[in-house]
Amino acid sequence: MRMYDIIAKKRDGLELNHSEMEFFIKGCTSGDIPDYQTAALLMAIYLNGMSDAELLDMTLAMRDSGRIADFSGIEGHTVDKHSTGGVGDKTTMIVVPMAAALGCKIVKMSGRGLGHTGGTVDKLESVPGFRTALTHEEIVRSVNEIGACMIGHSDDLAPADKKLYYLRDVTATVSSLPLIASSIMSKKLACGSDCILLDVKFGSGALMSDMSEAVSLASEMVKIGKSAGKRTAAVLTNMDVPLGYAVGNSLEVEEAVRILRGEQKGDLYEISIELTAHMAHLASGLPMTECRRLSVEVIDNGTAFEKLKEIIAAQGGDTTVIDDTSLLPKARFSCDIKAEATGYIAHMNTQKIGEISMILGAGRAVKEDVIDHAAGILLRKKTGDAVTQGDVIATLYTNDSEKILESVMAYESVVTYSEVPPEVPPLIYDVIK
Amino acid sequence: MRMYDIIAKKRDGLELNHSEMEFFIKGCTSGDIPDYQTAALLMAIYLNGMSDAELLDMTLAMRDSGRIADFSGIEGHTVDKHSTGGVGDKTTMIVVPMAAALGCKIVKMSGRGLGHTGGTVDKLESVPGFRTALTHEEIVRSVNEIGACMIGHSDDLAPADKKLYYLRDVTATVSSLPLIASSIMSKKLACGSDCILLDVKFGSGALMSDMSEAVSLASEMVKIGKSAGKRTAAVLTNMDVPLGYAVGNSLEVEEAVRILRGEQKGDLYEISIELTAHMAHLASGLPMTECRRLSVEVIDNGTAFEKLKEIIAAQGGDTTVIDDTSLLPKARFSCDIKAEATGYIAHMNTQKIGEISMILGAGRAVKEDVIDHAAGILLRKKTGDAVTQGDVIATLYTNDSEKILESVMAYESVVTYSEVPPEVPPLIYDVIK
Repeated sequence: MRMYDIIAKKRDGLELNHSEMEFFIKGCTSGDIPDYQTAALLMAIYLNGMSDAELLDMTLAMRDSGRIADFSGIEGHTVDKHSTGGVGDKTTMIVVPMAAALGCKIVKMSGRGLGHTGGTVDKLESVPGFRTALTHEEIVRSVNEIGACMIGHSDDLAPADKKLYYLRDVTATVSSLPLIASSIMSKKLACGSDCILLDVKFGSGALMSDMSEAVSLASEMVKIGKSAGKRTAAVLTNMDVPLGYAVGNSLEVEEAVRILRGEQKGDLYEISIELTAHMAHLASGLPMTECRRLSVEVIDNGTAFEKLKEIIAAQGGDTTVIDDTSLLPKARFSCDIKAEATGYIAHMNTQKIGEISMILGAGRAVKEDVIDHAAGILLRKKTGDAVTQGDVIATLYTNDSEKILESVMAYESVVTYSEVPPEVPPLIYDVIK
Repeated sequence: MRMYDIIAKKRDGLELNHSEMEFFIKGCTSGDIPDYQTAALLMAIYLNGMSDAELLDMTLAMRDSGRIADFSGIEGHTVDKHSTGGVGDKTTMIVVPMAAALGCKIVKMSGRGLGHTGGTVDKLESVPGFRTALTHEEIVRSVNEIGACMIGHSDDLAPADKKLYYLRDVTATVSSLPLIASSIMSKKLACGSDCILLDVKFGSGALMSDMSEAVSLASEMVKIGKSAGKRTAAVLTNMDVPLGYAVGNSLEVEEAVRILRGEQKGDLYEISIELTAHMAHLASGLPMTECRRLSVEVIDNGTAFEKLKEIIAAQGGDTTVIDDTSLLPKARFSCDIKAEATGYIAHMNTQKIGEISMILGAGRAVKEDVIDHAAGILLRKKTGDAVTQGDVIATLYTNDSEKILESVMAYESVVTYSEVPPEVPPLIYDVIK
């Protein structure tokens, strides 16, 4: 078998078979296939697409390119949750303790932020002492004892994805539906949980701005998960507006705490209830109405908030900053942005908000950048809100005074105004099972 | 400017502008752009094509990636000829002396053979002592004195093409019309002649098997040549059947000599008259009928044959092997192939004939292979010829006895037979000016 022939076949729009896909993924991971051949195939896949059979073969070959986590030592059904990434998406820190409070078993592996989207690992590291790297034994013990852990990705799971992602990132082949689906699902399958809940986002702050593309992506991923023997579902959620009000690491921890304490309702609360209910539904099979009721209950009775503290304590984190969030890292500089017009906020460029948060220090332009955990943005007004000229619509936080001017100027173009209230699309568009 | 954005633009079917194309070609040649990014762009070009403006920009940037040969020291209009490559295509060795005998000035640079097609440099090296590397001064003196030289390609002309060709060869992006056109024309423009005659071949032994694709390729190349200020024309010729009867280096030299001596007519003679006439027409502006008459004359009066000997002598070659071709390298082993059926030869797989010649030792599977100048094939019967079962249809020659069995078996599947004479398409399909 020759990589040349595999490229030519895909170039001509033909279907690659199981052994060809395996040959490609193995050779790419081992380095036997040079990067320029992989790059040519990635572009051919981007432009010619893949069949369902090819996509499944590719995903399973990527899953099998490294270790597959074995959590047979954990009692009960393990459930995983994955978001395709957004701006202000701190749901992991909320739904993992909620679902654990409901009795789910969760080994949640998360990534670091890159570009305009943040990463759960960065957010959690706002908590002093919190360790995101645990041994296999620590994971199994923690999950058996308290129901959940929140850790970083392990390099030995789906190494093919790491290799392919690096090349996609530099060859303009990231935004391909089958390449996104195989990337996400190979990692999720290697993570070894029994159930997978996918939060597929669309809108100006998401990987897929187009809703119908997000629906296709969700459907493909659910198909792959089920074919691989996992209980899988996808919730399609709107990311045209940042989720909640906080963007930036310690600011988001603070907001997660407010939600878990029942002090904040709105979009972030609603989506947290819905995602937790779906996780519980996948793991237990209980009816969704019952799962929703229980999800509300674990917030109202404080067990979800206590569970967050248990998880943080088990991983070496200082829970006093959770009880008193004023102890979390705070920025030296803050700057209010005021409304330019009176009327309604018609639209927010959510990707741009993520980029400004990155400029302020909350994110990374390149992998090597160091995070400022205190930096970020607090939104005061969001799409659909009525504003009077001069109202504060956002506050920017940073420890780097040189970034203030650039960020304030950039924020000016983020928001557009209208005289009549805009139509605000539903937060949860659909569920694919 | 970033290569990433250039790839994304071409991926999305948009047109690259002049400075983007220049950035790509410069970066690719210098090595500043990594091969995987170039490979991704090549696949995007293969699948999305290029506009005329992009193709011209790319070709000129490739021409300008190295030295441009300066033949201002040569008196009169210089004329170049390029064939897209075929099996048994020894026309260069025939038309260069013919055109020189007509007064044309020709600096003919040729390549070596790779895969199923031979290279003129290999064929010429069958002549003992013949040097295909000359200094600039030697070239100018030879052409001013005797009208022509036949040399190898210089590495410092269009180095971008060498780099791109290497990557196309391993990423299944060779057979792209704009990539072929820019490759050929960048080299021809860097060779610095005033007039360019292109011999664009189609059929089972050519780079483009499809005639309409060959027409498009020819049109694009003529457009590029004219836009770059060169008198340019393309002749579309049939390569569904090998040209002439000899395939393999010294066998082809022998056949070229027969044509120049007026001892052989048929397809090779006809195409040689036509190509020479077009070269003279481009260089002199004389009417084609007159150019054709003169082309016949230089064979009939022996001046073309004498010119070949002058060129060979000027480049250190032993002309006694031209006067007596029995002195050319001969193979130790020969093997006749006999007709399986009585009737007509309906079709020959010409690419396969080229591949068998390569197996016998006449060509290279990889660049490092050493050529056996005596190896090759003499065709005794060609498409359209009547045969009786048992007639010799071809003779295979080699110095490597281990190759005989494999080659003979392979030749069996080259020829198909019919009971009625097949329709033989015209040798010269069209001329594009």
